Amino acid sequence: MVGLGRLTFIGLGLRGLGGIPLEGLEKAREADKVYIELYTSPLADFSLEQLASLLGKQPIQLSREDLEERSGEMVLRDAKEGWAVLMVPGDPMVATTHVDLRLRALKAGIRVEIVHAASIYSAAASISGLQAYKFGRTVTIPFPSPGFMPQTPYDVVKENLSRGLHTLLLLDYDAKTGRWMTVREGLQYLLTIEESRGEKVASKDRLALGLAGVGGADVEVKGGLIGRLIKEDFKLKPQTIIIPGSLHFMEAEALKVLAGVKPEELP
Amino acid sequence: MVGLGRLTFIGLGLRGLGGIPLEGLEKAREADKVYIELYTSPLADFSLEQLASLLGKQPIQLSREDLEERSGEMVLRDAKEGWAVLMVPGDPMVATTHVDLRLRALKAGIRVEIVHAASIYSAAASISGLQAYKFGRTVTIPFPSPGFMPQTPYDVVKENLSRGLHTLLLLDYDAKTGRWMTVREGLQYLLTIEESRGEKVASKDRLALGLAGVGGADVEVKGGLIGRLIKEDFKLKPQTIIIPGSLHFMEAEALKVLAGVKPEELP
Repeated sequence: MVGLGRLTFIGLGLRGLGGIPLEGLEKAREADKVYIELYTSPLADFSLEQLASLLGKQPIQLSREDLEERSGEMVLRDAKEGWAVLMVPGDPMVATTHVDLRLRALKAGIRVEIVHAASIYSAAASISGLQAYKFGRTVTIPFPSPGFMPQTPYDVVKENLSRGLHTLLLLDYDAKTGRWMTVREGLQYLLTIEESRGEKVASKDRLALGLAGVGGADVEVKGGLIGRLIKEDFKLKPQTIIIPGSLHFMEAEALKVLAGVKPEELP
Repeated sequence: MVGLGRLTFIGLGLRGLGGIPLEGLEKAREADKVYIELYTSPLADFSLEQLASLLGKQPIQLSREDLEERSGEMVLRDAKEGWAVLMVPGDPMVATTHVDLRLRALKAGIRVEIVHAASIYSAAASISGLQAYKFGRTVTIPFPSPGFMPQTPYDVVKENLSRGLHTLLLLDYDAKTGRWMTVREGLQYLLTIEESRGEKVASKDRLALGLAGVGGADVEVKGGLIGRLIKEDFKLKPQTIIIPGSLHFMEAEALKVLAGVKPEELP
């Protein structure tokens, strides 16, 4: 079943070039051909030129069309006869596109391997001071448009809160315009739904955390009641929101020390 | 508030030395003192000697007692006057011990930074072919002992299934004996509780996935009904279990191609 071909997915982690795992760096240097896609999730402070000099070869950047409409056929072609690498933001396979390409490769008899890297899923949880095993389902808040404002994010927070679980809310990124949703826009999205439904899931007196620049040494973590947090400024990108569920003593302590949550703001 | 001191937590990722992020390698090389702990989660194929030669300095290994009973005081002492690094398995802060040390450092006016790495939380999800955002709460199955067999893992799976969500079940690791729980032992744990409760959460006709050696190129991913999967052998360590919830078309396709799940075993 497995032929000569080889395809290695390599995660780039969360920011710049620092998140590349040692194994990924070595394999990208050895491989015959290196592709990269930067649209499935935002990667801040990243320079393709710096990566090229680090690898000693020029990675070929793929567009959404290359991977989704043309099904990554050039990657598969190279992976059939030699060793092709696809570098992706965060941890591979979080995007459906990667899973699709992985399945196509396996069906073509290509040997596939995955080099894992830091993912926003675990990094946001761990930087917040909250315990990873107490997070429920994660959800993304999309950019709303006239007639388009799904209530899923609100429902997921509600569902997790009912079980005392924390919710990680990823904020949309528009690869075309390069625009990133901010904590303020995300909180406003939730408040707007709260106004119409009034179930006290995301009212102004609900504790929330805003994170910016997760993955960088200068990461911003601020917490407080939504009514106060929505006024806070976050400089870095990408930005993320966490709505905490029930808190252990150490989690409450962490929110005070790490995120500036006031004692009277704790549930 | 922030003095001269500096403490950097660096994730080692999941296996061997390959998971160390580039930024972590550079910072550990620069730091005045490098500590490492290898007990909060299992790290396969890891050699302290190789790490030492990679860093050009000998990391000081800390025991559970050093960090929990003596509160990592030697780390804090070094971090007050210079730059101390603590290397940890997986992604930092997943273990409460790291959060505790981080809070102590911040309260002592020490600058703290975190270098994220691959975590079993996202890696196991992504290698399985299932979508990360469809995972509910994660739970660990502990080694049972006479009179000790918590039903939490069963309850968490039940709770997630009722919402159509996947469950990642981490398997216990006994740092003292170096013993790792196997997929078979984990499934037996769930079956034993199923026998007494009979709620069809983890019966023999429930679809499950077994993963071994997550993080390595030779990772094993096998799926099937628990009654069949429990007979499968997994060579690598650590091992993990996933109980899938409702499946999208592509997730079902992935389980067939990646995990050898038979069409008739799909829900």
